Amino acid sequence: MALKFLTQKIAQAIDEELFSSGGFSVDQLMELAGLSVAQAIARVYDNSKYSRVLVCCGPGNNGGDGLVAARHLFHFGYKPNIFYPKQSKKELYERLVIQCKSLEIPIATELSDPSLTTDNDLIVDALFGFSFAGEIRSPFDQVIQKLKRTNIPIASVDIPSGWDVEKGNIDNQGFTPSMLISLTAPKLCASYFSGKHFLGGRFIPPELKRKYELNLPPYPGTDQVVDISNLPHEKL
Amino acid sequence: MALKFLTQKIAQAIDEELFSSGGFSVDQLMELAGLSVAQAIARVYDNSKYSRVLVCCGPGNNGGDGLVAARHLFHFGYKPNIFYPKQSKKELYERLVIQCKSLEIPIATELSDPSLTTDNDLIVDALFGFSFAGEIRSPFDQVIQKLKRTNIPIASVDIPSGWDVEKGNIDNQGFTPSMLISLTAPKLCASYFSGKHFLGGRFIPPELKRKYELNLPPYPGTDQVVDISNLPHEKL
Repeated sequence: MALKFLTQKIAQAIDEELFSSGGFSVDQLMELAGLSVAQAIARVYDNSKYSRVLVCCGPGNNGGDGLVAARHLFHFGYKPNIFYPKQSKKELYERLVIQCKSLEIPIATELSDPSLTTDNDLIVDALFGFSFAGEIRSPFDQVIQKLKRTNIPIASVDIPSGWDVEKGNIDNQGFTPSMLISLTAPKLCASYFSGKHFLGGRFIPPELKRKYELNLPPYPGTDQVVDISNLPHEKL
Repeated sequence: MALKFLTQKIAQAIDEELFSSGGFSVDQLMELAGLSVAQAIARVYDNSKYSRVLVCCGPGNNGGDGLVAARHLFHFGYKPNIFYPKQSKKELYERLVIQCKSLEIPIATELSDPSLTTDNDLIVDALFGFSFAGEIRSPFDQVIQKLKRTNIPIASVDIPSGWDVEKGNIDNQGFTPSMLISLTAPKLCASYFSGKHFLGGRFIPPELKRKYELNLPPYPGTDQVVDISNLPHEKL
């Protein structure tokens, strides 16, 4: 049974079920998602060589996952700094920012070019997730152009920002990350990705797995992530 | 610099700071606490030998940690069942129960004797935590007597329930667990405990560690727990 890659619609349906019949809060699942992102990064990019991590956070949930990941990366011995230009006014996001500030993680609202090319060893792309649709607005259009030009490795959270959730990197408009951390289950666009691919989100009830025929691989030990780079998969 | 064991007052002060200036929600920290409990248990009690885990949950936050731990233990391949006699009406706790029910984890409100002696391989004591004071009321007084008589190993969350938070197992009234998972930092009573001792709560900002001179040991890799069984420590 091959791992299933999800349409945007199915991904949204699973997400809604986790919050409704599953009884989860955004706080909880974002905490586990961000922790799994940080853990996956630590599996691939050792903190002795990739210490300085720029975490680029978008305006929605994907950005929230990034804020949580930055905090855990700090506790894992990295030196994260955050770029968060469009900060949510929601209470949860304000608290996530406070949590990072209490660790003295720098948070910038503008992205200076040198920081992309010289001051960081790794970039976390937490700009847009599986619910993204439509046009990429300022300043994120310029940010994606900058990420396209950098030589620093990029780890994308859930989908590579700028990619179509289902069709992938249309007309090569987006950048190609070195690593992808799919959350809950990979989205269709991930089938066009050939780098290091991890799955996070070890919280899906068996009933949901069966209902959507996710065929998730087993997670090793007590890990919150599993390497799915070489796993066979099918498209929906 | 030896690990510091905390008075009840200091433990409460640190807890309050995490929620106020630290910006954390109960949802978040309970998720991380429960995850660390499950992870610590998996380090000591392999799920091939200790599959059936009875998680005894008290009426407050310690019980909430237990509910989260039960869920993660399920995902780690254990077969948890929950004893939760005095269920909180708070929204968070009701959701934690829904999350366990969606995994088909049985939740009982009465503790049958056979389940303690024959149907389980391990017991998680999540009855009372560091804020406990006063008398142990029914049905928890009988529960603690039952735990005192069982031969099944017991893993206690934060403090062994029934122990004085600072003075330990006064007049030998309580039971002696095989394992203790201290959260944030050990409390004074833990200095009277000589079994397997883990620390969880990898989220304390450096400023808080300095302010209270916690001298926490480094956590290995991306683990949420660290074995402190053989660590030198000092009392406050």
